[in-house]
Amino acid sequence: MTSQHASDHDSGSPMADRSALQEIVERLWRVEDESGHHLSGVHQTVPSRAAVVGIVEDLRSVLFPGYFGERELDEESRRWHIGATLDRVRQQLREQVRRGLCFVCEEPDSARCAQCEAHTLVLTRAFLTRLPDIRQLLATDVQAAYTGDPAASSPSETILCYPGILAMTNYRIAHELHRLRLPLVPRMMTEYAHSVTGIDIHPGTTIGDHFFIDHGTGVVIGETAVIGNRVRIYQGVTLGAKSFALDERGHPIKGIPRHPIIEDDVTIYSGATILGRITIGAGSVIGGNVWLTHDVPPGSRISQVEARQGEFVDGGGV
Amino acid sequence: MTSQHASDHDSGSPMADRSALQEIVERLWRVEDESGHHLSGVHQTVPSRAAVVGIVEDLRSVLFPGYFGERELDEESRRWHIGATLDRVRQQLREQVRRGLCFVCEEPDSARCAQCEAHTLVLTRAFLTRLPDIRQLLATDVQAAYTGDPAASSPSETILCYPGILAMTNYRIAHELHRLRLPLVPRMMTEYAHSVTGIDIHPGTTIGDHFFIDHGTGVVIGETAVIGNRVRIYQGVTLGAKSFALDERGHPIKGIPRHPIIEDDVTIYSGATILGRITIGAGSVIGGNVWLTHDVPPGSRISQVEARQGEFVDGGGV
Amino acid sequence: MTSQHASDHDSGSPMADRSALQEIVERLWRVEDESGHHLSGVHQTVPSRAAVVGIVEDLRSVLFPGYFGERELDEESRRWHIGATLDRVRQQLREQVRRGLCFVCEEPDSARCAQCEAHTLVLTRAFLTRLPDIRQLLATDVQAAYTGDPAASSPSETILCYPGILAMTNYRIAHELHRLRLPLVPRMMTEYAHSVTGIDIHPGTTIGDHFFIDHGTGVVIGETAVIGNRVRIYQGVTLGAKSFALDERGHPIKGIPRHPIIEDDVTIYSGATILGRITIGAGSVIGGNVWLTHDVPPGSRISQVEARQGEFVDGGGV
Amino acid sequence: MTSQHASDHDSGSPMADRSALQEIVERLWRVEDESGHHLSGVHQTVPSRAAVVGIVEDLRSVLFPGYFGERELDEESRRWHIGATLDRVRQQLREQVRRGLCFVCEEPDSARCAQCEAHTLVLTRAFLTRLPDIRQLLATDVQAAYTGDPAASSPSETILCYPGILAMTNYRIAHELHRLRLPLVPRMMTEYAHSVTGIDIHPGTTIGDHFFIDHGTGVVIGETAVIGNRVRIYQGVTLGAKSFALDERGHPIKGIPRHPIIEDDVTIYSGATILGRITIGAGSVIGGNVWLTHDVPPGSRISQVEARQGEFVDGGGV
Amino acid sequence: MTSQHASDHDSGSPMADRSALQEIVERLWRVEDESGHHLSGVHQTVPSRAAVVGIVEDLRSVLFPGYFGERELDEESRRWHIGATLDRVRQQLREQVRRGLCFVCEEPDSARCAQCEAHTLVLTRAFLTRLPDIRQLLATDVQAAYTGDPAASSPSETILCYPGILAMTNYRIAHELHRLRLPLVPRMMTEYAHSVTGIDIHPGTTIGDHFFIDHGTGVVIGETAVIGNRVRIYQGVTLGAKSFALDERGHPIKGIPRHPIIEDDVTIYSGATILGRITIGAGSVIGGNVWLTHDVPPGSRISQVEARQGEFVDGGGV
Amino acid sequence: MTSQHASDHDSGSPMADRSALQEIVERLWRVEDESGHHLSGVHQTVPSRAAVVGIVEDLRSVLFPGYFGERELDEESRRWHIGATLDRVRQQLREQVRRGLCFVCEEPDSARCAQCEAHTLVLTRAFLTRLPDIRQLLATDVQAAYTGDPAASSPSETILCYPGILAMTNYRIAHELHRLRLPLVPRMMTEYAHSVTGIDIHPGTTIGDHFFIDHGTGVVIGETAVIGNRVRIYQGVTLGAKSFALDERGHPIKGIPRHPIIEDDVTIYSGATILGRITIGAGSVIGGNVWLTHDVPPGSRISQVEARQGEFVDGGGV
Repeated sequence: MTSQHASDHDSGSPMADRSALQEIVERLWRVEDESGHHLSGVHQTVPSRAAVVGIVEDLRSVLFPGYFGERELDEESRRWHIGATLDRVRQQLREQVRRGLCFVCEEPDSARCAQCEAHTLVLTRAFLTRLPDIRQLLATDVQAAYTGDPAASSPSETILCYPGILAMTNYRIAHELHRLRLPLVPRMMTEYAHSVTGIDIHPGTTIGDHFFIDHGTGVVIGETAVIGNRVRIYQGVTLGAKSFALDERGHPIKGIPRHPIIEDDVTIYSGATILGRITIGAGSVIGGNVWLTHDVPPGSRISQVEARQGEFVDGGGV
Repeated sequence: MTSQHASDHDSGSPMADRSALQEIVERLWRVEDESGHHLSGVHQTVPSRAAVVGIVEDLRSVLFPGYFGERELDEESRRWHIGATLDRVRQQLREQVRRGLCFVCEEPDSARCAQCEAHTLVLTRAFLTRLPDIRQLLATDVQAAYTGDPAASSPSETILCYPGILAMTNYRIAHELHRLRLPLVPRMMTEYAHSVTGIDIHPGTTIGDHFFIDHGTGVVIGETAVIGNRVRIYQGVTLGAKSFALDERGHPIKGIPRHPIIEDDVTIYSGATILGRITIGAGSVIGGNVWLTHDVPPGSRISQVEARQGEFVDGGGV
Repeated sequence: MTSQHASDHDSGSPMADRSALQEIVERLWRVEDESGHHLSGVHQTVPSRAAVVGIVEDLRSVLFPGYFGERELDEESRRWHIGATLDRVRQQLREQVRRGLCFVCEEPDSARCAQCEAHTLVLTRAFLTRLPDIRQLLATDVQAAYTGDPAASSPSETILCYPGILAMTNYRIAHELHRLRLPLVPRMMTEYAHSVTGIDIHPGTTIGDHFFIDHGTGVVIGETAVIGNRVRIYQGVTLGAKSFALDERGHPIKGIPRHPIIEDDVTIYSGATILGRITIGAGSVIGGNVWLTHDVPPGSRISQVEARQGEFVDGGGV
Repeated sequence: MTSQHASDHDSGSPMADRSALQEIVERLWRVEDESGHHLSGVHQTVPSRAAVVGIVEDLRSVLFPGYFGERELDEESRRWHIGATLDRVRQQLREQVRRGLCFVCEEPDSARCAQCEAHTLVLTRAFLTRLPDIRQLLATDVQAAYTGDPAASSPSETILCYPGILAMTNYRIAHELHRLRLPLVPRMMTEYAHSVTGIDIHPGTTIGDHFFIDHGTGVVIGETAVIGNRVRIYQGVTLGAKSFALDERGHPIKGIPRHPIIEDDVTIYSGATILGRITIGAGSVIGGNVWLTHDVPPGSRISQVEARQGEFVDGGGV
Repeated sequence: MTSQHASDHDSGSPMADRSALQEIVERLWRVEDESGHHLSGVHQTVPSRAAVVGIVEDLRSVLFPGYFGERELDEESRRWHIGATLDRVRQQLREQVRRGLCFVCEEPDSARCAQCEAHTLVLTRAFLTRLPDIRQLLATDVQAAYTGDPAASSPSETILCYPGILAMTNYRIAHELHRLRLPLVPRMMTEYAHSVTGIDIHPGTTIGDHFFIDHGTGVVIGETAVIGNRVRIYQGVTLGAKSFALDERGHPIKGIPRHPIIEDDVTIYSGATILGRITIGAGSVIGGNVWLTHDVPPGSRISQVEARQGEFVDGGGV
Repeated sequence: MTSQHASDHDSGSPMADRSALQEIVERLWRVEDESGHHLSGVHQTVPSRAAVVGIVEDLRSVLFPGYFGERELDEESRRWHIGATLDRVRQQLREQVRRGLCFVCEEPDSARCAQCEAHTLVLTRAFLTRLPDIRQLLATDVQAAYTGDPAASSPSETILCYPGILAMTNYRIAHELHRLRLPLVPRMMTEYAHSVTGIDIHPGTTIGDHFFIDHGTGVVIGETAVIGNRVRIYQGVTLGAKSFALDERGHPIKGIPRHPIIEDDVTIYSGATILGRITIGAGSVIGGNVWLTHDVPPGSRISQVEARQGEFVDGGGV
């Protein structure tokens, strides 16, 4: 039925309106059965984005106690706060871990689910024991942000205001869960940071200490990238794949290293695009907006051709 | 009054504080009457962002049942869920459609509003009948995301985690409302996606099937762009206008085609900027960070000059 | 403990689970004492992000009455709305101002806090008296957005939908507080806009009237940048520092002018990167994706080398 | 199916579970068509309890400004608060008034609804003009509560804490709407007070000034009761009907005066039950727990027979 | 420490404040171990009041579709609403049923919990199949309320406004769960009604059809009471136990019939107290405020001695 | 203006509607200045009911850890929960204590407020140190409820479901604050319980250990009542004042003992009314619905005259 037709004949009729809706519902219900990318057969519950966000925010308030909350914490109340919050995290994380594991669990029988259940407990506990180390690494990131930005008036300001610290907190949490082979949930955590900061770090990426992302919008760091210590990058930097191998069906082959290796003490300025399994040598500086697809030796200085005065006439408005 | 002055004479006086606030209120109230861009004369209610967001999220849970919610759905409960949600959407959408139509309704008399009311019913129904087709198109987008990204472990992961799917869902919903000439509301829907994903697609854009946006932050696609089937673009790509014609008063003329046509099976890598009513021929590959303002024939390969080792000294910190 | 090990010995034991959590809590509690970037010694409450967001949203509904809310406002009810909202803002802003001031207050004795208290009142009042001027400036920004974008159907649409207007509102509010030397809170306000729009404007930046940012994702404008009147910029533009001086300890020296000066009537297209304390002369047009680190005279036209057809083979997928 | 039977055969079967639910849904859906007390034919929306509660709470904060809210109000901000709140009440009340009127509107055609619409505006406005008088009466109730209870330390305490003042506020608002012949909504308002305080006053009751209900739980005052000035009653008092006339079908005849008339300056102690269209003369005092079904002259003292020491053995536990 | 002492020595000291709190926490933590009525040993989660309330409200909107919600429902959307709501109820009820069963499950080993799990599924399903019958009974209660109260203008008004209907809905739901021997949860449901209406019906009570409670505050109906069809009671009526037998330890013996049997067509007026396993014969009328502990034959008329004019001097103020 | 008049002349006119509202606002604003029971002169913020409710609920979850919350607590997490919750209570209670003290603080100068501030700290701390004793007393109340009601299946059930335990928890908290002479807040706490349970206990009442209130609706216990140990009362019992002395202005004199003394081991059945400063001797049993205004010796048995078969004709419907 076209909108035109509708207005001619029955626009004001509630009866027509009702039967139309019923038909739409039936069509949407049936369409579901025909398309391939749904939960067919497996009727389990997927991880909840709201719950994953809640877990990450709880962990943030544990990793930076006193910064995210309405109350001041003294030495003793800080312990209570950390304990009570972690106790809640443990319980809520278990449910999301279970959902993540079940999502890829192929055997439909109940015995299998008992395995998922056992794995859930082990995985959750293993993650929690990693928190002190995550905390240690984030402390170096905060230090790097403070010393790396003249506009930062204190380390505290970077914890409270810098999107790079927020994104790194989510990444470092998600990375540990990814290492424990938990499906879906780690990606939801880094996508949450991506949504809030514009910084897109795949949970599979490996990143050293004292990492600093300034401004950050548009930063993309791929799944198999390896980043050393004391690396600094700016907004709009891509550490991507140059190409990827396809299997016989034309599908990309998963898991092959295809993103750059950035060695220690490298700085990459805004808008630079670095593609492929190349190595940027230690101490190099990559200029803004450059396009780079080959290895560079340690200590390199790479820059773009400077723009020129010219025949330029019209703009680039959208 | 300067802050210095204030502290000398009346800093602690609540009385001074009160009369000062009263004067500010009066000034803000009067200022409103003098500036041009307000709701003068027309005292209607504008569409509500919260309601528009609620409608989009309800539609998302109808288009991807089982993915966004706390409960597993079986075959029958999926029908109830779709029906009950669409029933709510219909009612809430009508209110926002009415507000959108009234916003541009020029005749102030009540007969006119009866027309808006009738139009609201027709438009809302026409939109709802389009939902199964929207669903079909989104199924192709999900397929494109899964086969186009080696990091995607399943189509389900792209539904749950990929900002490109979120943005395309909002766009495909908004586009249908835009085709039905509904003001304001479609743009609010795509801006909601823009805020969450950094992907800015104008609801007027035309996009074919199997469209894939990876990462997506910074993508901008203009109002009159036309995109074919099986097109793939990466973060930071702009499909913009090179310039736009002005009328005799120096205002841009609305509605003239001014954005690129992207034919089938084109891939555009990150940061590329393509401007003006040019055509990118089918099967072309546009490299990252390129700046392109002229037609390219089918099958083209366009790339940027590679960055060079050089005299680069200082960085680009902000 | 590795996940493997755990599953061998104690995977199902709640007892082990509990003592493990207790140890993690203790380690997180102790770790806090060792790292440098926390609230050690100073046990005050930091500004609350939720409260700062609430204040900004209240101010937005005062500066654009009728646009953000469920109710139409007539001439008289607009006054009540403005008055009641500002009355609430005044009270909530005071608390956040106080927290911001106390955060950097170095003397721990209570007399000092009385000074903070007095300063809080003065600063809050001084800010509120600036609101009518902020309103006036934002009116020019709305006008610039409407006349600068062919896709804008009315000034109202830009208020409701354009991220550039949202970001400028947050910036203009934050800038006044920054001028009054309030720590932390202004940056939280612009970071809130950064999160929602991808536009990152430091509250210290100086910006004239009729400023228009289109699309905006990825825009970064540094702390000491100075922007004239009627300037227009597009998504992905960076106005950054080329380098910054270090002090004897290798820390960046704060507060030195290091970002560009953009004179009146300049347009800067998407993705351009302009670095250092350089001056872009009045009326210049800077093309998309250019990289610019030197002064350009008034009326200049700067463009990037056009991309070329070439040996390009592989993409830039991530 | 009995629970026993279910556990034998199909307790663990999700399939059985699903088809069972489907059958229950169908039965509940059909049952609805057979029973008499539903919205058959008339598919309108009933007044919303949440909205009615919101309106009453908004009015409470207007009638007692400064008592129910987080902020202190000075002379000017009180005006803004009252204005902004009443503006919201007007809009929300109109919707509920319209629902109440439509609920009893018998003619199904649209012309009739235009009448409801017009009536809605008139009724809402008429109610709002009564607010200052309601305020005046409530001031006398507050005074009566303060002088009538030795435990009250200030009139303010009675506004903040006394259920009698809460119930009277709801009643006095509802009574005005009841006088304007609005269906359903007034009763929802007094039932809201009944739920919170245990005091059940029918909105049709007529009550003079300086009325004081202490404690109040269990107080019931019927539809046609008439209460003079300066009356005081305690918890558990019933002013009810002794009997009611039936029509030829055995249904009670509506609207006949059947509840007591209480003249000025009467006090009724806890648990007293006064039934029928009798008159309690001015200045009388009715003792606790008495049962009274006949007129008493002015100045009467009525008391129950005192309990006696006796053969009492067992208790009255529940 | 007395308040006086505290103010002498350490009133302003945050340090003292902190160590004091720590000691209080330790004492509260230890006290828990000493008292008998806690969850010692059994560390399970108790049923959640918020969840139980949510389940009851969902069921109310299923049993009276269209009355409690913002939307009108037509014939088809009513089915979707019922289906989607029951689907949610099923899931949430299962969790609370499981908690209720586990609460009294004595064997701590995991095999036992599998039994609880199985029992949970059976019990939940058995309850859901009872819903159509519950609906049927409630329809008779609504009819009884309408014909029994001259102030009721329609059956709809009694559904929307009458606390007796609310209480009976909760009771009839809870009673079915109580019959299925679910611990704790049924009592939480009737206590929820008790809190909102002041009507306290034990879920174990047996009540026939067409039951009407008017006003209701203070009504108490005990666990073993049996009430016939077409019974009507008013506020403040107690159907309680006269005494109860104690076991050798002095504890009351559970489960012995000890509350009244009320036969068909009985009316009991406000404040009447009826105690013990006595029988009130069919068609009897019990007057207000009477105290009754013996059987009365069918057709009886029981009334209190009328109050008298007397020596009454002082009041009964509290 | 009558509703009739309005419909004749200006029913549909928004303009008339607006000016009418403006006038109502002005009248409500002025009326405020004339009536006596407002916050004239003293422009402080009154205690917040929502905050007081939050404090009480937090304390309830500390006093009965594991019963009110979604999580199971083990031995260690219980300590964290208690600590973190008490830390929050301390901060929120201080604000409400300050508001309560300032409310009655007569001297308007700031030095006086410093006194309030100091007093706030002392009073809050003194209250917190009382919590373990409150916990101990409540443990006896729970024991009394379990052993006193045959329908109680476990002490846990009484904690979760019995209104008497809820009311006693609020009372025992409020009583300690009342002993510390905090205005307003204690009464708000007991009124919160009154609203939820129908049990109205003045915070000034003195109550011993093992106190049990069954059902509770309608119970009223006055300010100066004194209740011993192991006392049990049922719904509808009043312990009130018989009369109260007036001062020369006719106002009741505050603070004179005027409510009953109930000695140890007394049971009072439902609906009994006991008035005046009389003493009910230890071990007495007071029957239901009695009216008692004189002392009774220890061991008394007091009962009401039994109701009789009689001339009763009509009912007591309302």
